[in-house]
Amino acid sequence: MKRSKTKKIIPAESLSKMGEFGLINLLKDKLAPHNAEVLKGIGDDAAILRPKGGTDWVLTTDMLVEGRHFDLKSTTPWELGAKTIAVNISDCAAMGAKPKIAVISIGIPKDFPPAAVQSFYDGLKGWAGNFGVDIVGGDTVGAGELVVNVALLGEVEKGRALTRSGAKLGDAILVTGTLGDSAAGLHSLRHPGSKGAEVRPLLEKRHKTPVPRMISGRFLVESRLATSCIDISDGLSSEIHHLAEESGLGAEVHSEGLPISRSMGYYAEEMGLDPLELALHGGEDYELLFTVPLPNLGEVLRTMPGQTGVPVKSIGRMTAKATGVTLIGAKGVRKPLKAKGYDHFK
Amino acid sequence: MKRSKTKKIIPAESLSKMGEFGLINLLKDKLAPHNAEVLKGIGDDAAILRPKGGTDWVLTTDMLVEGRHFDLKSTTPWELGAKTIAVNISDCAAMGAKPKIAVISIGIPKDFPPAAVQSFYDGLKGWAGNFGVDIVGGDTVGAGELVVNVALLGEVEKGRALTRSGAKLGDAILVTGTLGDSAAGLHSLRHPGSKGAEVRPLLEKRHKTPVPRMISGRFLVESRLATSCIDISDGLSSEIHHLAEESGLGAEVHSEGLPISRSMGYYAEEMGLDPLELALHGGEDYELLFTVPLPNLGEVLRTMPGQTGVPVKSIGRMTAKATGVTLIGAKGVRKPLKAKGYDHFK
Repeated sequence: MKRSKTKKIIPAESLSKMGEFGLINLLKDKLAPHNAEVLKGIGDDAAILRPKGGTDWVLTTDMLVEGRHFDLKSTTPWELGAKTIAVNISDCAAMGAKPKIAVISIGIPKDFPPAAVQSFYDGLKGWAGNFGVDIVGGDTVGAGELVVNVALLGEVEKGRALTRSGAKLGDAILVTGTLGDSAAGLHSLRHPGSKGAEVRPLLEKRHKTPVPRMISGRFLVESRLATSCIDISDGLSSEIHHLAEESGLGAEVHSEGLPISRSMGYYAEEMGLDPLELALHGGEDYELLFTVPLPNLGEVLRTMPGQTGVPVKSIGRMTAKATGVTLIGAKGVRKPLKAKGYDHFK
Repeated sequence: MKRSKTKKIIPAESLSKMGEFGLINLLKDKLAPHNAEVLKGIGDDAAILRPKGGTDWVLTTDMLVEGRHFDLKSTTPWELGAKTIAVNISDCAAMGAKPKIAVISIGIPKDFPPAAVQSFYDGLKGWAGNFGVDIVGGDTVGAGELVVNVALLGEVEKGRALTRSGAKLGDAILVTGTLGDSAAGLHSLRHPGSKGAEVRPLLEKRHKTPVPRMISGRFLVESRLATSCIDISDGLSSEIHHLAEESGLGAEVHSEGLPISRSMGYYAEEMGLDPLELALHGGEDYELLFTVPLPNLGEVLRTMPGQTGVPVKSIGRMTAKATGVTLIGAKGVRKPLKAKGYDHFK
């Protein structure tokens, strides 16, 4: 994770003194576009883009709200900036698209320090840059709580975007990376202490600055090996339901097949948590959940980790709709797998 | 203004019971795409778009926050939905682009009634539909105050988007419609009473559901008669500064030339307000401020009102940068015109 060095470009005066246009100018100076599609970035009523044609674009948006998605006690503004763009890139990755162009809206409380705004934009710009994304515009408004919204355009080969609805009966179900780290990291942030101290920083980092699986998504599109894909933002148990439902199928997941990191396993043991619960229902891992036809499974398992730098694991298969979504436990015991992912209204 | 009939599609249970996915399904059902560019709308990690090529796209975003941009005492959720999409369409119109594809994020307080959410989406969908816009995705989250964000893509003929920076020395400055109505409407909402009762509903409507000048913007691009354009969201005095600055010029505005509606003039008189102040500094008119070379002025004044259904008025001309932005008063007295538009941090 690369952090851009903090430069003193916002004077230490209050945001209200600087005013909205000061902030827009700041953004404009900091964010020169790199993608050829951007004819004009920040500074007009809208950005001007020129699609090169012959490709498809994907468009996604995500809003993060203080006190719901993050709190400023445990998350720095820099981390928030990084995460804001990361969660949108993750949606792009789930479609197999290359993220390219974003607009950012931010609602800022009056007493939010200008240095924190600068830090937020540093994180945003740094992570956008790492993934080849240009910030081409935005809106800056006052708000009672900090709220940030990104809308992101990505590009994908014509007709080849991965959707949730493409899974076929019998397809293998796979996930990238490991599951439950982010939930364990959130637990750690909420339960400070010395237990499991060795792994807390890593787990907390997984929660605060998730790395979107852009390269994994691109691999799946370029290799043509996958039939469907979704990112795990609300927890595996929720996302597998979405994928099954949209594909008109059921699914079975082997609990013993779930990829659990040593760090998460250790933390769960130390804290008396059930690692399986964290892996199944913990949100915000931003790993990819995808399906591949059985004949492709060997090739995916053999080539994908090496070419993407991220492990993949087969965790189950797509079944007939009538069987629903089931979890197969240690001794082959089946039970319904209920969606228990995070829901913002519950 | 057409209001869609309220249908009982959200049961009268609390939002927390319905859950986030209930809301997403609601959106999905209500918003089938019409633009050919939309291959897949709501329901996946991102929408899939296919630009037809050979045109430019514009991208803009706007955030509205409860208590800052609207209050739910004087604005209905339906009106808020309409305004949310309208202010983004206005940015598109200022570029001369045809609005096409939008994503919407909404942060909803826990106790916000489901019927109000339904009404918000009715307004949003109704106005989006009126202007040919497809809502192709979004995000629905919990928040402490109601906050809505739209990101909007529009399409414009290749290389012909209107910017703030294209004005030339000597160009005539024009505005569509009338100025200050929205500010007078806001004043009326904040000062209930019987004075000026005849015109209050009209002025308040101008504030609550502004009609974006899409057709005027399209006329300017199609006719090739304009050199620059900006929409008046923060007030004429602010926007003329942006336009002059971006074009590297100064500007002079004739106070007697400003288009003031009879309703606003009457209301100002009744309430002891200065109509000139409202017209110069009142925000949220969402009229277009644009420049045309002098040789085009006659044609614009002659043809544009008939072809767009919206009056246009010449209010000044672009001058050398050194002269700054000046206001020419009744007896030819010049004084600097300071930007006094609304600033969210002041």
